[in-house]
Amino acid sequence: MGEMVTTYEGWYVSHDFRVMDWTVWKSTDPQKREQIVQELLDLTSSYSSLEDNQQGSFGVFSILGQKADLLFLHLRPTLEELNEVKNQFDKTSFAEFLLPAYSYTSVVELSGYQMRPGTDPDTDPHIQARLKPILPKNKYISFYPMDKRRDGEDNWYMLSMEERRNMMKSHGLIGRSYAGKVKQIITGSVGLDDWEWGVTLFAEDPLQFKKIVQEMRFDEVSARFGDFGSFYTGCRLTNEDVNKYLHI
Amino acid sequence: MGEMVTTYEGWYVSHDFRVMDWTVWKSTDPQKREQIVQELLDLTSSYSSLEDNQQGSFGVFSILGQKADLLFLHLRPTLEELNEVKNQFDKTSFAEFLLPAYSYTSVVELSGYQMRPGTDPDTDPHIQARLKPILPKNKYISFYPMDKRRDGEDNWYMLSMEERRNMMKSHGLIGRSYAGKVKQIITGSVGLDDWEWGVTLFAEDPLQFKKIVQEMRFDEVSARFGDFGSFYTGCRLTNEDVNKYLHI
Amino acid sequence: MGEMVTTYEGWYVSHDFRVMDWTVWKSTDPQKREQIVQELLDLTSSYSSLEDNQQGSFGVFSILGQKADLLFLHLRPTLEELNEVKNQFDKTSFAEFLLPAYSYTSVVELSGYQMRPGTDPDTDPHIQARLKPILPKNKYISFYPMDKRRDGEDNWYMLSMEERRNMMKSHGLIGRSYAGKVKQIITGSVGLDDWEWGVTLFAEDPLQFKKIVQEMRFDEVSARFGDFGSFYTGCRLTNEDVNKYLHI
Amino acid sequence: MGEMVTTYEGWYVSHDFRVMDWTVWKSTDPQKREQIVQELLDLTSSYSSLEDNQQGSFGVFSILGQKADLLFLHLRPTLEELNEVKNQFDKTSFAEFLLPAYSYTSVVELSGYQMRPGTDPDTDPHIQARLKPILPKNKYISFYPMDKRRDGEDNWYMLSMEERRNMMKSHGLIGRSYAGKVKQIITGSVGLDDWEWGVTLFAEDPLQFKKIVQEMRFDEVSARFGDFGSFYTGCRLTNEDVNKYLHI
Amino acid sequence: MGEMVTTYEGWYVSHDFRVMDWTVWKSTDPQKREQIVQELLDLTSSYSSLEDNQQGSFGVFSILGQKADLLFLHLRPTLEELNEVKNQFDKTSFAEFLLPAYSYTSVVELSGYQMRPGTDPDTDPHIQARLKPILPKNKYISFYPMDKRRDGEDNWYMLSMEERRNMMKSHGLIGRSYAGKVKQIITGSVGLDDWEWGVTLFAEDPLQFKKIVQEMRFDEVSARFGDFGSFYTGCRLTNEDVNKYLHI
Repeated sequence: MGEMVTTYEGWYVSHDFRVMDWTVWKSTDPQKREQIVQELLDLTSSYSSLEDNQQGSFGVFSILGQKADLLFLHLRPTLEELNEVKNQFDKTSFAEFLLPAYSYTSVVELSGYQMRPGTDPDTDPHIQARLKPILPKNKYISFYPMDKRRDGEDNWYMLSMEERRNMMKSHGLIGRSYAGKVKQIITGSVGLDDWEWGVTLFAEDPLQFKKIVQEMRFDEVSARFGDFGSFYTGCRLTNEDVNKYLHI
Repeated sequence: MGEMVTTYEGWYVSHDFRVMDWTVWKSTDPQKREQIVQELLDLTSSYSSLEDNQQGSFGVFSILGQKADLLFLHLRPTLEELNEVKNQFDKTSFAEFLLPAYSYTSVVELSGYQMRPGTDPDTDPHIQARLKPILPKNKYISFYPMDKRRDGEDNWYMLSMEERRNMMKSHGLIGRSYAGKVKQIITGSVGLDDWEWGVTLFAEDPLQFKKIVQEMRFDEVSARFGDFGSFYTGCRLTNEDVNKYLHI
Repeated sequence: MGEMVTTYEGWYVSHDFRVMDWTVWKSTDPQKREQIVQELLDLTSSYSSLEDNQQGSFGVFSILGQKADLLFLHLRPTLEELNEVKNQFDKTSFAEFLLPAYSYTSVVELSGYQMRPGTDPDTDPHIQARLKPILPKNKYISFYPMDKRRDGEDNWYMLSMEERRNMMKSHGLIGRSYAGKVKQIITGSVGLDDWEWGVTLFAEDPLQFKKIVQEMRFDEVSARFGDFGSFYTGCRLTNEDVNKYLHI
Repeated sequence: MGEMVTTYEGWYVSHDFRVMDWTVWKSTDPQKREQIVQELLDLTSSYSSLEDNQQGSFGVFSILGQKADLLFLHLRPTLEELNEVKNQFDKTSFAEFLLPAYSYTSVVELSGYQMRPGTDPDTDPHIQARLKPILPKNKYISFYPMDKRRDGEDNWYMLSMEERRNMMKSHGLIGRSYAGKVKQIITGSVGLDDWEWGVTLFAEDPLQFKKIVQEMRFDEVSARFGDFGSFYTGCRLTNEDVNKYLHI
Repeated sequence: MGEMVTTYEGWYVSHDFRVMDWTVWKSTDPQKREQIVQELLDLTSSYSSLEDNQQGSFGVFSILGQKADLLFLHLRPTLEELNEVKNQFDKTSFAEFLLPAYSYTSVVELSGYQMRPGTDPDTDPHIQARLKPILPKNKYISFYPMDKRRDGEDNWYMLSMEERRNMMKSHGLIGRSYAGKVKQIITGSVGLDDWEWGVTLFAEDPLQFKKIVQEMRFDEVSARFGDFGSFYTGCRLTNEDVNKYLHI
């Protein structure tokens, strides 16, 4: 039986993937469309302005392929605020042109495997900044949920703390070798949503998503113990991009 | 071959997750909406009033993410009453604005692993209160269904009673260490619905859902033998909150 | 390689689960609704009247949860008659208010494991009555499809006849210990539908569904070799109940 | 590593399962319905007439249960012709009353396991007739797709040719013992569709579908190496039956 | 733990499978249809014209069966351009007659297993042509996504580089033996989409798709380590064919 690792949690996170109903959007009166876009931009601006007071973070992304068209990514100090965001957004005019695609509820997590002894996560400013992160403004995003496998001989949760720590260390070294190329936010979702973690990557070059995930897949912790959900790749949209995206 | 453990059952339980059709709701005449909300609140009040005579319990919750918008959680002495609740609710005006999302039919269960010898579950007031529970009024709820695994070497039902009892004891100790932070209602659904158990957790701090489920995952009974379905997390709605939630 | 067991087959069976479209039903003119209900009751009465001449059997049930609302359960001497029932029912006015939910096509089956030597199943009146059963009129029904597992060391079809017979005998003893509490109809669907068997249980107390399935799950034949589909639980509807169910 | 067996291919095959939209069909003007049925029967007659010149074969079937209502089964010398059939059919008036259910694209296949040495499949008239078959006109049909398993110790493709040949021989003997009761057409779909093979059975007595598939399931090649998809069972419709089926 | 193989990437690729809404298309005014077809052909012509300057490649295909009707296959130097193609196409009039079916986002990949020592992939003209390929104009296409298995003893990512290289060499020899019959484009999607690779095959004779995939399935690298998604087979459409396809 494995000894549990301590984890540290920060802001709650909502990945809200939606499909755009272009046919209905295009059949809407252009003036009404303009008004709805303005309402949407006012709302997303208010979401983004939370970053100024470290009260949350926000980004909107255009997703490749048919799995989704848009990703609204919200970070908030409490789950109640995330719920309020959802319930308010669903009442907006723009939400009438969106269909559900996929969503993920989680909380920013740092695991104790990588915590330096003597650090107090509740006060250390570096740790605090990682637990309550402002989203990177890179051009590309990649998101995927994952589990640690529990299957016969390949059962992560039956390993000793020592074995897990060693594998996570090697894993962390790969991640660090991509410093400057890929930023990652790990969010935990045990007890909150269907997978154990969500991984959100940011980069200027989307090939780096392929490179880092591929390199990690040859690492024992992923090779033997990683089970992955769907991968979503997208491009960040500024307010100006949103405007252009919705322009017919 | 494993010797069966005795279980004790109480009230029947229906977890009824629904998606809200906001577009149609918003296009409805405000006066009609007000009337429908009033009807709904009258109904939910009547559900809740069962708690006064220990004839059942009820709660409504706003669910995070796209898996569902609302959870209607009913407890009743008989399955027939639960069926009647469903059939009546589906005929209400408010039900016309709801889409199906997920449902779960089960019955409150206590397992004999943890029963003190000499206790008569049919009369013991403490046991009776746990079998016919009034739902906690905490701010947050988490629900997930689960199975005990039957896979090659990891087959719960082929273990001896002794092995199972020891693992369940360790499991129970974790649960008890969250006393005051997390309340749980275990419901059994073998022969009634698709998973073997439903777990419903209540807390004032949703991080405790993550903590308890994570800690249990390192426990052998979950690590080797737990298979989990979808996790649903939500916020409790009072009648006033329902009113606010439905207000446009 | 396992020696095949002989099976004996009787009436063909259709489990036809449907979802009710209440919104459209409620928006239908009350007089038209009344007429449609009358047509439906005439039809179900004609189905039930087959029982008088041992030409088939029929029941309709209200299903718990969102998986389905109604189950129409038909038994007929030939598959062609079942097909005709389906095609005629789909043309009725009432069918316009129903959505598909799940269906199962099978045939009543007795396995040779439990056949007493010297019995001729084609003439033995007890066997014949079990192969062409009139549906019990109990208050509750439970249905689930299942397979015998073929997975590595747990491969039912690679066991010897002797091993299988012993396990089925123990299984049968559990079933018999529920005599008077649970009636069961086993239907085979190899070559006809997606699972190998359908199990349909009838009881006055739905807790007995949980008790019998749970007890059997600790039996090696289920613990190691049983793979189960979805479980559907419902309440029997008389013609009067159908009338009440459809009344707005 | 297994040595590949040689296979011989004939006509391309399309299994096209559809659901009937009865509500829309019934709301259509009777005269228009009559005209649409006539167009459909003209089309199916033209499909069937290909059998006269050995240029293809065709059948239409009424399917049991909710998985599908109708199966249109086409055989053609080239994949391009099958594609043309699809694209033309989808433009017919009748297609507006059909919803997609399931489809399967494959090609008639004979495997070298059972080929007598010295036979030239390209000229042997018996082989040619099996590769370009006219569909049997039996009352009942059963279809299911399947794979050979590649799972740990149960990996068909890692067996030696000798092992596979012996198992296939035993399998073939069971098939041959149903001569006169069940006719089967094996179609290969590796590289064309989601499973490796499609099995289409024809019989006058549908119980024979159950008997043959059950007997084969105890054969090692199925018991250890067979993975099966959905099973579809149906009744053959003559033009007269189609007319009756669509009559309101 | 396996040493990672180096990979080389070229153009980004979008496989965009859609279903045609024939009912709505047929109900559209013929003149409007003609205009929409012309717009579509102008657009696809502009896509194809990228091939003249090696700025991308494009093809449209009619897909067999119900999984999809049309495949729009795009290659572009950057992911951002692919995203722009998607967003523009979804705003066209023709897109209003299409439903989503399946999509795949990947990037052309060559693996280092097969790279001759001393080659510089960034300048070698042969390698560059393979990384930025113009789509073959063959009559037939086959597409399927795949993973390398990570399951107990069959874990590709836990093999040594030597073992993997030997298996890939044997795999490559099979591929080369189909030279002149089957052209293939391998695209990698680790970190971008749900499977690790997409395989797109082109041939004049669709039987060659079956032959090559079947032969490879007996190769250890596929037999033990290949997990496959859905297979899509189609016929290439020229502008003239598109016109004919959409003509009622």
